[in-house]
Amino acid sequence: MKQYKGYLFDIDGTILLGNTLIPGAKEKIEELRMNGKKISFFTNNSSKNPKKYVEKFKEFGIESELDEIITAGMVLLSHIEKNYSDQKVYIIGTEEYKDLYRNKGIQVVNEVSDFNNHNIDILIIALDTELDFKKLETACQLLKKDIKYFAANEDLVYPIENKVYLPDCKAICNMIEVCTGKQPTYFGKPNFIMLEYALEKLGLDKKDIVIVGDRLYTDIACGNINNCDTILVLSGEGTGKEINTIYKPNYILESISYL
Amino acid sequence: MKQYKGYLFDIDGTILLGNTLIPGAKEKIEELRMNGKKISFFTNNSSKNPKKYVEKFKEFGIESELDEIITAGMVLLSHIEKNYSDQKVYIIGTEEYKDLYRNKGIQVVNEVSDFNNHNIDILIIALDTELDFKKLETACQLLKKDIKYFAANEDLVYPIENKVYLPDCKAICNMIEVCTGKQPTYFGKPNFIMLEYALEKLGLDKKDIVIVGDRLYTDIACGNINNCDTILVLSGEGTGKEINTIYKPNYILESISYL
Repeated sequence: MKQYKGYLFDIDGTILLGNTLIPGAKEKIEELRMNGKKISFFTNNSSKNPKKYVEKFKEFGIESELDEIITAGMVLLSHIEKNYSDQKVYIIGTEEYKDLYRNKGIQVVNEVSDFNNHNIDILIIALDTELDFKKLETACQLLKKDIKYFAANEDLVYPIENKVYLPDCKAICNMIEVCTGKQPTYFGKPNFIMLEYALEKLGLDKKDIVIVGDRLYTDIACGNINNCDTILVLSGEGTGKEINTIYKPNYILESISYL
Repeated sequence: MKQYKGYLFDIDGTILLGNTLIPGAKEKIEELRMNGKKISFFTNNSSKNPKKYVEKFKEFGIESELDEIITAGMVLLSHIEKNYSDQKVYIIGTEEYKDLYRNKGIQVVNEVSDFNNHNIDILIIALDTELDFKKLETACQLLKKDIKYFAANEDLVYPIENKVYLPDCKAICNMIEVCTGKQPTYFGKPNFIMLEYALEKLGLDKKDIVIVGDRLYTDIACGNINNCDTILVLSGEGTGKEINTIYKPNYILESISYL
């Protein structure tokens, strides 16, 4: 296998499976670090503060820095901070996610009483485990005007215990699209902006890194679309049977421990 | 135009438009009643107690009986009452809709703490303006088991003021389908069970009645699919331009007042 300077690891299905660690993940990450490799953790989750991942990894004995945790939610926040920091945003997302904006001094509007005379500039959708109908109505009302519309990640569902799947960010966006005809710009994997953000944090060029993940249409697609090498691991969602798709990994491994 | 013994009027877009009365609706209904015609109001709305329509009509001077108001929600409730009155149901719906079940002595489970050991027999979805993520999660969890799964109406969206559309019953079902792969049995227009319920209330045969409505894919489809005459009115959603579909009305009128 080619030697890379940096590794972009997906989290769910690659490092963790639900609330358990993939066997060998801790040792493999330590080994890579010992060999001077740069590492980032690269997830489409947009409900959590990245700090939660640092804490969770620590529980499993994996040391990580906040800067190494790259979430779709943070990529979107970074875009807003750079380009629209003085504008007002309405967020369909968890309070934990909204706090990340508030902490950056961005004005997050919580309640919209008068849709016609509101002064909201940007509608943002993320995975929202605190979703309610009022938020959906607000989004549909706001989109009557031509405001900016961004969403964190293109995942329809996310898995919880016992192979149960729950609605993720894109499922919410699809419901809003049926009502308004409008689609957001997405920021998570497989989009370039997510990879670009990770490369900037790693300080590496895309030819020097490899994306390691279990989902063809996010992790492997992200590499394929953006001309970056990929490794599919079969420890999560994939079984290897579905690899006959448009997305092709450079390598297929049973799990991270075979790296 | 053929003379009918009974008229099944859609409500939104046919009798009312938002919170206003379609001009001439009151007079036309009085005229039909004077001529001995039987009338029912026939709506896919599944969030309201039918009493609300009697009260709303009264505000506009239209007299109606509770038995004349046929909602998709009531058709579904009637099916449960007839076939599964001793079973436990979990409802994604408004408290107003749930109360209709409670009033019939049906056990409505509100909170599900243990999904594996629950004893819920039936999952029911209706238009739910009180929707929250916990309800969506409960539905996804319940559908891991092979329980009965029914939904009131097949409408993706419903209109409110200023041409804003909000998610209706089928939009919720579609979100759940993405997570679970499961689809419910629907009871509203254009399904036969809704028409059968109305005919039973009217005491008429389908050859003796006409469906009057503004939506091709619910009102006119209901007639076409079930071999019953239809009148399309252009006072609501339709403009007449979209009638080049698979659904064909027998008559097209500008509004109910031209009947």
